[in-house]
Amino acid sequence: MKPLVVFMPIGTIRSPFSDIAGMPIQPSGAKGIAGTVEVSEEFADGLTDLDGFSRIILIYMFHKCESCELTVTPFLDSATHGIFATRAPCRPNQIGISVVRLTGRNGRVLSVADIDVLDGTPLLDIKPYVPAFDCYPDAKAGWLEKNGHRAVSV
Amino acid sequence: MKPLVVFMPIGTIRSPFSDIAGMPIQPSGAKGIAGTVEVSEEFADGLTDLDGFSRIILIYMFHKCESCELTVTPFLDSATHGIFATRAPCRPNQIGISVVRLTGRNGRVLSVADIDVLDGTPLLDIKPYVPAFDCYPDAKAGWLEKNGHRAVSV
Repeated sequence: MKPLVVFMPIGTIRSPFSDIAGMPIQPSGAKGIAGTVEVSEEFADGLTDLDGFSRIILIYMFHKCESCELTVTPFLDSATHGIFATRAPCRPNQIGISVVRLTGRNGRVLSVADIDVLDGTPLLDIKPYVPAFDCYPDAKAGWLEKNGHRAVSV
Repeated sequence: MKPLVVFMPIGTIRSPFSDIAGMPIQPSGAKGIAGTVEVSEEFADGLTDLDGFSRIILIYMFHKCESCELTVTPFLDSATHGIFATRAPCRPNQIGISVVRLTGRNGRVLSVADIDVLDGTPLLDIKPYVPAFDCYPDAKAGWLEKNGHRAVSV
């Protein structure tokens, strides 16, 4: 058995979504929805220079998932798929990532838009979104090829 | 104090890089470099249908980092920046993400290319890369605007 990995929340994500019902599926379905990212005082210095980035990657915990399934029927399809071929939350390790718009910063509190996470979500990391590292417009999206755009409207 | 978060490695990433010296900085600087992702037997069913995606997001632990700095001078600049405005590994939570090319699958072993991680890296999650969710070509890259392209050659 490999050793476990222990992380600590570095802050909390605030959003208008207190419940999984009615939540957008991805940032592409949450256009304009505003939220805040409150980074704990002890990590505030790490935010220096983040302001120059228009998008950031939030890494967080899907804290409302208690089960783990290896095959799921995701929101955007009627067929089952392996959990690693989906973005569904109840995964072996409940790690979520969202690329959101950074709209402002007031000290250790970030204003963000296009937020698709539950209010009170524990934040684990923030990374700058860099198109040269993160943007692959031609990537094939498997079973999501025909349904991915529906995230905007579902 | 918020409760800690505990994850388990779900597999291991194999790459030609046994040492941080000489490693590419990002997948964009690791074009063509081949590696494998070995998922543990107990999670193998979660890989079903992953094959249809040409790129996947690996989430892993920067297992060789033992310190944490809140401001760093990254490889691609001579100025210091807040850790959350960089992709540097020695972060409060040592979580790494890389978008790599999925070139094949043999059961629970994935063949990947453009791999920029150390051999033996503990894998935490795999997500499908979906351009509709993950690709923002016009995002402004802060201090990396002028240096991001250098990741290809440094």
